[in-house]
Amino acid sequence: MQQFLPFTKEDALSWAYDYPTPFYVYDEEAIKKCASDLYRAFAWNKGFKEYFAVKATPTPAILRLLRQFGCGADCASIPELMLAEASGISGTDIMFSSNETSDKEYRAAAKAGAIINLDDITQIKHMEDSIGIPETICLRYNPGEFNITNEIMGHLFDSKFGMTKEQLFEAYKLLKEKGVKHFGIHAMLASCSIDNDYYPGLAAELFRLVVEVKEKLGVQIEFVDLSGGVGIPYHPDEKPVDIFTVGKGVHRVYDEIIAKNGMELKIFTEMGRYMTGPYGYLVTKVIGFKHIYKEYVGVDATACNLMRPAMYGAYHHITVLGKEDEELKLKADVVGSLCENNDKFAVDRLLPEIELGDILVIEDAGAHGHAMGYNYNGKLRSAELMMHSDRSVTCIRRAQTARDYFDTLDVDREFTENIDRMFEND
Amino acid sequence: MQQFLPFTKEDALSWAYDYPTPFYVYDEEAIKKCASDLYRAFAWNKGFKEYFAVKATPTPAILRLLRQFGCGADCASIPELMLAEASGISGTDIMFSSNETSDKEYRAAAKAGAIINLDDITQIKHMEDSIGIPETICLRYNPGEFNITNEIMGHLFDSKFGMTKEQLFEAYKLLKEKGVKHFGIHAMLASCSIDNDYYPGLAAELFRLVVEVKEKLGVQIEFVDLSGGVGIPYHPDEKPVDIFTVGKGVHRVYDEIIAKNGMELKIFTEMGRYMTGPYGYLVTKVIGFKHIYKEYVGVDATACNLMRPAMYGAYHHITVLGKEDEELKLKADVVGSLCENNDKFAVDRLLPEIELGDILVIEDAGAHGHAMGYNYNGKLRSAELMMHSDRSVTCIRRAQTARDYFDTLDVDREFTENIDRMFEND
Repeated sequence: MQQFLPFTKEDALSWAYDYPTPFYVYDEEAIKKCASDLYRAFAWNKGFKEYFAVKATPTPAILRLLRQFGCGADCASIPELMLAEASGISGTDIMFSSNETSDKEYRAAAKAGAIINLDDITQIKHMEDSIGIPETICLRYNPGEFNITNEIMGHLFDSKFGMTKEQLFEAYKLLKEKGVKHFGIHAMLASCSIDNDYYPGLAAELFRLVVEVKEKLGVQIEFVDLSGGVGIPYHPDEKPVDIFTVGKGVHRVYDEIIAKNGMELKIFTEMGRYMTGPYGYLVTKVIGFKHIYKEYVGVDATACNLMRPAMYGAYHHITVLGKEDEELKLKADVVGSLCENNDKFAVDRLLPEIELGDILVIEDAGAHGHAMGYNYNGKLRSAELMMHSDRSVTCIRRAQTARDYFDTLDVDREFTENIDRMFEND
Repeated sequence: MQQFLPFTKEDALSWAYDYPTPFYVYDEEAIKKCASDLYRAFAWNKGFKEYFAVKATPTPAILRLLRQFGCGADCASIPELMLAEASGISGTDIMFSSNETSDKEYRAAAKAGAIINLDDITQIKHMEDSIGIPETICLRYNPGEFNITNEIMGHLFDSKFGMTKEQLFEAYKLLKEKGVKHFGIHAMLASCSIDNDYYPGLAAELFRLVVEVKEKLGVQIEFVDLSGGVGIPYHPDEKPVDIFTVGKGVHRVYDEIIAKNGMELKIFTEMGRYMTGPYGYLVTKVIGFKHIYKEYVGVDATACNLMRPAMYGAYHHITVLGKEDEELKLKADVVGSLCENNDKFAVDRLLPEIELGDILVIEDAGAHGHAMGYNYNGKLRSAELMMHSDRSVTCIRRAQTARDYFDTLDVDREFTENIDRMFEND
């Protein structure tokens, strides 16, 4: 049984008339509902803010949509900062996640008025040399190995992110002496967790640290950044996170640890995948078959459009539009045209019978999908469309052209003259 | 012990003055020697041609360099075809590797006069519908499981490429009836093999097929395309392929199987990695350290500049310029600034003591390096430089700018107006 999607084969074919496959399409109403639900689930916390992880879907129309609900942006490079600002997100609505940060990046973050989330104690000197000491700062914690809940164990010895507890305390002390006025704490202890207890468990640990930092150092941490790590059900057998249960869970530990100690603080999150992942679809057309040692269905998208299966072996559900009710008779690999054998959207996947021209929808591609696109084999990145409530679409990012692909070769005069002639004759 | 490279710290620093790190640099003389040696090793074969796998290093200055030695280009997309043609490689000097090929791609390949290498028997109809039946055609073989030599076993049941032996014979028969005049055969049975017996073993199998196809179908195959698959020693403990031994090995089986049967044919290769891999270097600067559960050295390159360690867990040797003779006292992970924990150029690597500003050279990055670059986290792709024999450099591809990064957002008027204002004020 395939899934029924919020659009039909007729919709996809009508969009493909203007925007040839493969393309990404995002469900505007679903993203709005997700953002609205998140803010409702955390409405008990004054100052709650989601800093959308820009890297998940760095597209202005998405950022503006989320901004309407109060979302800020989590950025980690100058282009991401520019993207956020030109999408109307500015000042402390931007979290700048430092991690091997350059002078130029510190200066850009400071100029934007972003909150800097320091990854390491050694970065204090680097930051001070670059931009001085800001009024507000967040510190990233890495506990090494850690039981978040009975179910979730964080193995972070191999994680390059964050600082040890000892370094964390030392950093708060040093930064207080240097005149920082407002403090935050940040940690990400899991990736793609669909356990409703993940955020509450993480929050409890960070809240306890907040109390300890207050007691030992007299530093009042004002916000706790739960970062990302909240996942989505890529596989149909998995259950989605219930954000209201999560919000209540965090509320409960907040009352137990923070409110009970007569303190208050703001909760921040930095979700990417959870906000847009399930609401973006890669739409592609069947252009070939092979019957060799296995069955293959060839499509016009490649790993260059969606890298997750090639890089992580990730599962993405696939629906054949118009055949949602049909029996799954075919077992096949769904492959792109890249000259590399990891260019497979699915391996041994059960599908209905497929014909040339069928439209396949690769689901849960709304985060870390288009964003991780590349140009291997000269493949071009696809367009992004926003589907509105009436199922009309707006193009929010056009497809790359061969012209774009050759952009950075303009230093090569011989090539440029030849390619210009080819474009003229085309 | 680190390796001595064909350039020094002083060279790198002087280049970095004009082209800030991270950047790629290619050793022009070494690439020329590699191409020259390859042609010498196969000089016994009249008509030998290397079709350089463009996807390895799709940069015109590299293609023009190889063209001087007689190399053609192996392409698999329209931008790759354009790249080859605008670099002076045209007609049957282009091999177009079909694989889930679209009508548009067939038409572009036909217009260029390229040899089409058909991946599957089902593609015959597709190709005929698109462009008719060409005079020359190559067919790609996939034997499933296969002993190439005693040492090398091809496991190709899971490979999406090529056709079965039965389909291969059927395809030759059909295409002969349809009027094809010149035939080739292609197979790639290993990836990154540094065994001198790989090409001879593969050649022997294909030569035997050539004899069998002649006997059974009366089809005279005129060229054998050994494809790529020849590797390079990424790890210092590995030994490089000796191309002269390889050439002799192929010559021996040619005499035994082809010449003995009174036949002759041309040998083609489609190497990418072997031609440029060892002669390209990613040059990056140390910008940070961390001492948490492990030691970390932070550099200004990221997986966006070189994806192989993140995607394949690939080993790349790293040399610290100016410290080639120093004792390896530090065990550290070498990491980039990407907000993803697979952004590590090395894990638990022994290095000399490192200082801020040290220049690290990530070696064997000359193929599938810059070519697989991406823009995750808003990271920009780096410049490519060609180092000449006097160690001066020419910029053969400029670094991406934020402007380039925003190119495909020109459909978003609100964003475009804002970003234009930001660039003006910058």
